[in-house]
Amino acid sequence: MTLTGNLLIGQRAVTGSREAIRAIDPATDQALEPAYAGGTGEHVAQACALAWAAFDEYRETSVEQRAHFLETIAEQIEALGDALIDRAVAETGLPKARIQGERGRTCTQLRTFARVVRAGEWLDVRVDNALPERQPLPRPDLRQRQVALGPVAVFGASNFPLAFSVAGGDTASALAAGCPVVVKAHGAHPGTSELVGQALAQAVKRCGLPEGVFSLLYGAGREVGIALVSDPRIKAVGFTGSRSGGIALCQAAQARPEPIPVYAEMSSINPVFLFDAALHNRGEALAQGFVASLTQGAGQFCTNPGLVIARQGPALQRFVAAASAQVQRAGAQTMLTPGIFSAYATGVGALAENSNAEVAASGQPPQGPNQCQAHLFVTQASAFLADPALQAEVFGAASLVVACDSDAQIRQVAEHLEGQLTATLQLDEADLDSARALLPTLERKAGRILVNGWPTGVEVCDAMVHGGPFPATSDARTTSVGTAAILRFLRPVCYQDFPDGLLPEALRHGNPLQLRRLLDGKREG
Amino acid sequence: MTLTGNLLIGQRAVTGSREAIRAIDPATDQALEPAYAGGTGEHVAQACALAWAAFDEYRETSVEQRAHFLETIAEQIEALGDALIDRAVAETGLPKARIQGERGRTCTQLRTFARVVRAGEWLDVRVDNALPERQPLPRPDLRQRQVALGPVAVFGASNFPLAFSVAGGDTASALAAGCPVVVKAHGAHPGTSELVGQALAQAVKRCGLPEGVFSLLYGAGREVGIALVSDPRIKAVGFTGSRSGGIALCQAAQARPEPIPVYAEMSSINPVFLFDAALHNRGEALAQGFVASLTQGAGQFCTNPGLVIARQGPALQRFVAAASAQVQRAGAQTMLTPGIFSAYATGVGALAENSNAEVAASGQPPQGPNQCQAHLFVTQASAFLADPALQAEVFGAASLVVACDSDAQIRQVAEHLEGQLTATLQLDEADLDSARALLPTLERKAGRILVNGWPTGVEVCDAMVHGGPFPATSDARTTSVGTAAILRFLRPVCYQDFPDGLLPEALRHGNPLQLRRLLDGKREG
Repeated sequence: MTLTGNLLIGQRAVTGSREAIRAIDPATDQALEPAYAGGTGEHVAQACALAWAAFDEYRETSVEQRAHFLETIAEQIEALGDALIDRAVAETGLPKARIQGERGRTCTQLRTFARVVRAGEWLDVRVDNALPERQPLPRPDLRQRQVALGPVAVFGASNFPLAFSVAGGDTASALAAGCPVVVKAHGAHPGTSELVGQALAQAVKRCGLPEGVFSLLYGAGREVGIALVSDPRIKAVGFTGSRSGGIALCQAAQARPEPIPVYAEMSSINPVFLFDAALHNRGEALAQGFVASLTQGAGQFCTNPGLVIARQGPALQRFVAAASAQVQRAGAQTMLTPGIFSAYATGVGALAENSNAEVAASGQPPQGPNQCQAHLFVTQASAFLADPALQAEVFGAASLVVACDSDAQIRQVAEHLEGQLTATLQLDEADLDSARALLPTLERKAGRILVNGWPTGVEVCDAMVHGGPFPATSDARTTSVGTAAILRFLRPVCYQDFPDGLLPEALRHGNPLQLRRLLDGKREG
Repeated sequence: MTLTGNLLIGQRAVTGSREAIRAIDPATDQALEPAYAGGTGEHVAQACALAWAAFDEYRETSVEQRAHFLETIAEQIEALGDALIDRAVAETGLPKARIQGERGRTCTQLRTFARVVRAGEWLDVRVDNALPERQPLPRPDLRQRQVALGPVAVFGASNFPLAFSVAGGDTASALAAGCPVVVKAHGAHPGTSELVGQALAQAVKRCGLPEGVFSLLYGAGREVGIALVSDPRIKAVGFTGSRSGGIALCQAAQARPEPIPVYAEMSSINPVFLFDAALHNRGEALAQGFVASLTQGAGQFCTNPGLVIARQGPALQRFVAAASAQVQRAGAQTMLTPGIFSAYATGVGALAENSNAEVAASGQPPQGPNQCQAHLFVTQASAFLADPALQAEVFGAASLVVACDSDAQIRQVAEHLEGQLTATLQLDEADLDSARALLPTLERKAGRILVNGWPTGVEVCDAMVHGGPFPATSDARTTSVGTAAILRFLRPVCYQDFPDGLLPEALRHGNPLQLRRLLDGKREG
């Protein structure tokens, strides 16, 4: 497949007519061919009209058809071979091994959702049989299943050009739920997006599905995105990106005549709590693990450990000294885009100039354009509690150590935090009571709580929660990674006293799909 | 128990200091004692502070404790005896048998949620065991459960003074999920609200729960309600009422620094489709069933059949004639409040003056204050499609028959509808194909679809959906009646690599709560 610079509206390649975006190789600051001319409002409307036309047919495909489609997408992505890897490396500055790993994760994710679709638990079938003799009134026959919400708008993320982009978690879970998807490609990796988009469109064709099941749009600025979220045929939104971008989409979705749900994953600084015994017993090892997590991928992860909280004293001083030494050795790494680099520089600059924070260490200086120099800062809890600027996310390899006077002040700092994707506890046996006392607060603050690990690294599995209270996400009731992500794109419908032949197959007498139903209040085995 | 006219802030009775509300017996237009002075912003803050203080303890009560609490509430309500029935009849004008039935429904609902809490499926426990040998990276141990969202604000509804009010479905499901509840009583039945509030507070005390688990506030106008929804300690809202009221709460919830979910059940006209064969074969019986559903309880149900859609012709004319005869015989019935009566009169007046609609029949004239005279209107599909005023909800015993030229026009009318709580199909064998063709549209439009029944009557069971796309509700992903309502007040939390002793009981090794977990991708038996 060659890159065309076109939008994909269903199976049709269309040349945009608005301001073009062009990928930049962040390692060289060179622009890459081709240019991707932006779509217009008319293009958005065409993609949405196709998605709407496809919706009723697509949502009623059998679980087998839909699972096979997800598997076919994975195959088509794999069939892109090195062309995909090379382009993604050029567009993101990420190492080849990382992109290869991410391709594996993306395809595994699609296949995982195929398994979920086949298992059918997402249908949440509930049957209450009629009770014609009940007094004072008979009970009708009532059957519930979940149906797809409608066409979904997905916004690709900059930092996972495959796993959170065109065929990433939002797209996979929406397609699994039975929703057509219109993707707005992230401007940082348009070529990678086109390749994956072509693979996805090819899978639509091979599986004989209506073409509107998938479209791919490009656009500089927010025009295409806001038009997409405002289109009456779009019924939900998936987004991973900045807080300001997510909030703008939430506001556009709420301003519609018919408001729709937005699943925006936005902002998290992922506090790490170092408890006394752990800090005393293995401060050096903690420093090593922490800096490895902090600097991995130039810190460009939603779950990057941006905050370390511990009791002040000699043990914390030793930890800071050891972590500082590690940071100083850390080489500068190319960031994803000049924009991300510049935002990082601004964020780090603001911390450096903040009289409440002190630079503990800086990493190796940049050797080329857009390189992230790691930074470690320290502050006192009293200052952290007083200054909201110290809680702002700095996307990249920067972190802030907050030194606290007491366990009570640690709890105070925890209560003061905004919503988070993760919270991490480093603890030894003697710390268990302190950790237990902090847990209720952390359960209210975060979607995932880790013990003796590091928050980077998000497993795609059933138990994962990549979500959390605002502003970590716009909807704490959900996750954007893991199989529960499918639940975001469903709603229940109840069928009362239907003749069997008119019922959807999942609800029929005799349970032809062999689902584990909730039958008259009891779960089937 | 005697009525005090006080707010209930936890276990403390507090006298308000703002404009008082006073119930009016709608059958006589007489004000009832006592007056309920409205709460202030300070009272709202006190109730929310208590709820917040109770939250961590209450959400971690055992399933047995919480189930027992719900059952105790039911017992305490029953212990109120005739005092509750008499007061509710006086405040609402509803017949005694209806109020007795509604008390039974309310207590059964609480006991049903006790069963749901004990069964523990709401915890949605997912366990992915560690895979230490996995290549290229080991998998950590990951465990997910659902936790309560936080304190919930519940707004009582006018039309179900028990089942959708202080201890109604929203309160029962929020308490079942582990959320403290602050109720804003509906101004139409303050005495009924106080009695049930006292029963609930008594149950809190008997079960040894922290007092902030429940508070009850009063207030004229929207001041108390908006303050409640805006309080940072409130994390979700349950509401049943008008479209304007629901939208105002949604906007207040979105305007918070931390937006929160609002479950508002607002507006539905509940279309009934009469298919050709059914209309031809049993038009008389349909007319009888329809008018019985239309006039039941003076039409004051969210699921009242406000729209009838059919192909024009002699069969429809016979149906309209038969329904008109039934409507003309229907006696006028006292409505819940002077305000509801006046809104009904305005709505009916607007239809009567609308040149696109024609009055087919009116019921018996009123014999006393606030009495609802039933009305049947007819219009043509072309007019209905052109005039949005014909789709506005008229709360009460009024309905509009829409005569269509063709099956295609019936589909067009269906596509033109806003979101609905219900859609009803009256069909015979020969109508099955027509019904099947319409079903995809109705699945997109409504939360519940009925065959050969009438939409009034909402069963409390596992399979019920009392919900639907906007504006039927503000969140189509949920139901406010039935056991799935508990899911509205939960969010997932993931625990990674926790030592067993630090895990919540539901997630421990050995599965001490005997839950059906999703274990390494397989559902336990």
